[in-house]
Amino acid sequence: MITTVCRNENFNAAHRLHNEQWDDEKNKTFYGLCNNPNYHGHNYDLTVKLTGEVDPESGYLMDMKVLSDLIKAEVINRFDHKNLNLDVPEFKGLNPTAENIAYVVYHKLKLKLPKQLELSVVLYETPRNYVEYHGK
Amino acid sequence: MITTVCRNENFNAAHRLHNEQWDDEKNKTFYGLCNNPNYHGHNYDLTVKLTGEVDPESGYLMDMKVLSDLIKAEVINRFDHKNLNLDVPEFKGLNPTAENIAYVVYHKLKLKLPKQLELSVVLYETPRNYVEYHGK
Amino acid sequence: MITTVCRNENFNAAHRLHNEQWDDEKNKTFYGLCNNPNYHGHNYDLTVKLTGEVDPESGYLMDMKVLSDLIKAEVINRFDHKNLNLDVPEFKGLNPTAENIAYVVYHKLKLKLPKQLELSVVLYETPRNYVEYHGK
Amino acid sequence: MITTVCRNENFNAAHRLHNEQWDDEKNKTFYGLCNNPNYHGHNYDLTVKLTGEVDPESGYLMDMKVLSDLIKAEVINRFDHKNLNLDVPEFKGLNPTAENIAYVVYHKLKLKLPKQLELSVVLYETPRNYVEYHGK
Amino acid sequence: MITTVCRNENFNAAHRLHNEQWDDEKNKTFYGLCNNPNYHGHNYDLTVKLTGEVDPESGYLMDMKVLSDLIKAEVINRFDHKNLNLDVPEFKGLNPTAENIAYVVYHKLKLKLPKQLELSVVLYETPRNYVEYHGK
Amino acid sequence: MITTVCRNENFNAAHRLHNEQWDDEKNKTFYGLCNNPNYHGHNYDLTVKLTGEVDPESGYLMDMKVLSDLIKAEVINRFDHKNLNLDVPEFKGLNPTAENIAYVVYHKLKLKLPKQLELSVVLYETPRNYVEYHGK
Repeated sequence: MITTVCRNENFNAAHRLHNEQWDDEKNKTFYGLCNNPNYHGHNYDLTVKLTGEVDPESGYLMDMKVLSDLIKAEVINRFDHKNLNLDVPEFKGLNPTAENIAYVVYHKLKLKLPKQLELSVVLYETPRNYVEYHGK
Repeated sequence: MITTVCRNENFNAAHRLHNEQWDDEKNKTFYGLCNNPNYHGHNYDLTVKLTGEVDPESGYLMDMKVLSDLIKAEVINRFDHKNLNLDVPEFKGLNPTAENIAYVVYHKLKLKLPKQLELSVVLYETPRNYVEYHGK
Repeated sequence: MITTVCRNENFNAAHRLHNEQWDDEKNKTFYGLCNNPNYHGHNYDLTVKLTGEVDPESGYLMDMKVLSDLIKAEVINRFDHKNLNLDVPEFKGLNPTAENIAYVVYHKLKLKLPKQLELSVVLYETPRNYVEYHGK
Repeated sequence: MITTVCRNENFNAAHRLHNEQWDDEKNKTFYGLCNNPNYHGHNYDLTVKLTGEVDPESGYLMDMKVLSDLIKAEVINRFDHKNLNLDVPEFKGLNPTAENIAYVVYHKLKLKLPKQLELSVVLYETPRNYVEYHGK
Repeated sequence: MITTVCRNENFNAAHRLHNEQWDDEKNKTFYGLCNNPNYHGHNYDLTVKLTGEVDPESGYLMDMKVLSDLIKAEVINRFDHKNLNLDVPEFKGLNPTAENIAYVVYHKLKLKLPKQLELSVVLYETPRNYVEYHGK
Repeated sequence: MITTVCRNENFNAAHRLHNEQWDDEKNKTFYGLCNNPNYHGHNYDLTVKLTGEVDPESGYLMDMKVLSDLIKAEVINRFDHKNLNLDVPEFKGLNPTAENIAYVVYHKLKLKLPKQLELSVVLYETPRNYVEYHGK
């Protein structure tokens, strides 16, 4: 029996989109308001999805409490109430677009999860803008 | 034209996670609060997804009213305002984890649906914990 | 400057509506499915609202973290993953209707909050059924 | 790096389900309330999903502002506050079921999007009834 | 013990804003897209709030099932899948703005509810536009 | 006929809670994570409520499009994708707590609205933390 379990967590962070290879003019034109040098911020909603075999003995694919604790240790405690550009080393030199945040979250979690589980990450920057990343 | 139609229904039920093969100590340690012998409960949200060919004459894959009535007859009327462990025969000897509830719902509906339609079930135990099952 | 701050928390519990003064027939007719002797359950959503003067020095009416911790200590830790009828002493002899749960929550919190703050409690039994109680 | 970006927009429209090949009796029996000759309406929620390679320079799969502007130009400005049957030429002779609306939206957007991006459309007719279309 | 119980129901309807005392030009300028002669529509969300004394015997202010049935009989069955302008007699000569719909719903329900209960009506035309009416 | 119309808008901003009269130690202890010197951020949800007489001719208390445009001109365009502490002059010397943001929004809008309308402002910092301000 193959199933997918999903857990939602969230974090509130500041960020700025800016490519250091481009001049200020190009950054401002391309990223618009998201390039504000003083940062802006979001309530990010994160859904982590794991696909694999359900353990017939426990009826669990993975204990949701264990999954929640892992997401908190690896992601929430490091991103929440932070400035992604300045406070989170993974974004030194990597633009914190929703696409890149999902990529970073995926790889931080992948390292700590049982190898046989397939991982997907859904990251909502706002209720209307979100990104799905499956590790490909 | 292949499409997927989705219908959301819900039911409110009590349940308890407990493996009769394990002693009380192990159950308590493993399932934590979910092992409370007096039960706890949830507002379960259920989304049923059907994939198949749209009928060009009616413009429907399946009449949503018919689908809703089927989900009510097979699932909601049997699970709503019930104790899943005590009142629902499918969970005699099967732990009502979200994974197992999705499995039971899938197989109850599968029997009654046109064979050519692919079925998926999404079961929300809370807005933050949910399970997807595709029958594999 | 008078304002209202609001904090949402939630708990998942089993309950049963049953009046011990009435016979089984009357209970079943009056409470319908909610009278199921084996209990059913809900994801309860609780909003606590406090009205009072904002402290001009801190810009806070009350620290939301402190308010959240108080709600957890007084309500969530005692109601979550519990059977309200059997596990929560406040409902010995008091029917755990949404009206009565809101009443109990109000009075538990009122005792611990600064006297000068006006308190309201909103309790969602489901997203479609909820109760507001202002202590009158 | 392959990812999926998703953008939500919405429109409010009237519609009626009616097959001109069928007599009134059959239409009424089959479509029920949705066949009301004077129309009814919905707040439609539309999610557009694009899958493809993230541009490593910008960190974007596609600029969400550009995507939003495209959805507005192609869909929202033409469907919002309209009668789908009478005001939107795509539904002359095509029943505006959720399945068919998703199909029309898909093909209007597909024409204007970069060819290498995979497109999916999710159309909510109500929060409980929705359709997913992937262009197959 | 004075409390407020709230029940949410919904209906899907077409409508058009148009003042027959005004010429077409003025109607179009004033109501904009909402004046479309072919109508548009919404998923209306309705919350009915009742304030009064809780019955100490039952623990209910009013049975939510009874309240839901009343709202369905008086409002939902008459408004759902209808054209408010053409199919609902209360809007003959009364513009179906959200303000006026809330007014009509209030007075239809008020007639059927126990006199000692205070009534409020909240009507969502969209998730972003809504109206509250307390009968004053 | 007195009614209340409500309009929801939103903005995404960075902020930091810090009292310049206090030393760093006290700020850090009191505001916790919210004192991060590099800022964090939120998707703020703003509901503006206006109470007054409905115009019997138009059926409107106030045109929602006009209200939306006013909120955008006065609040959204000035706060969205900004750093509230650094980019918004109203918060020079005023801590951008939810309480103070609601206060500032209220007074900016009050100046531009018809005097006979009563104004309330609801500001969601997160879906679980929000503030209501009625101008008292």
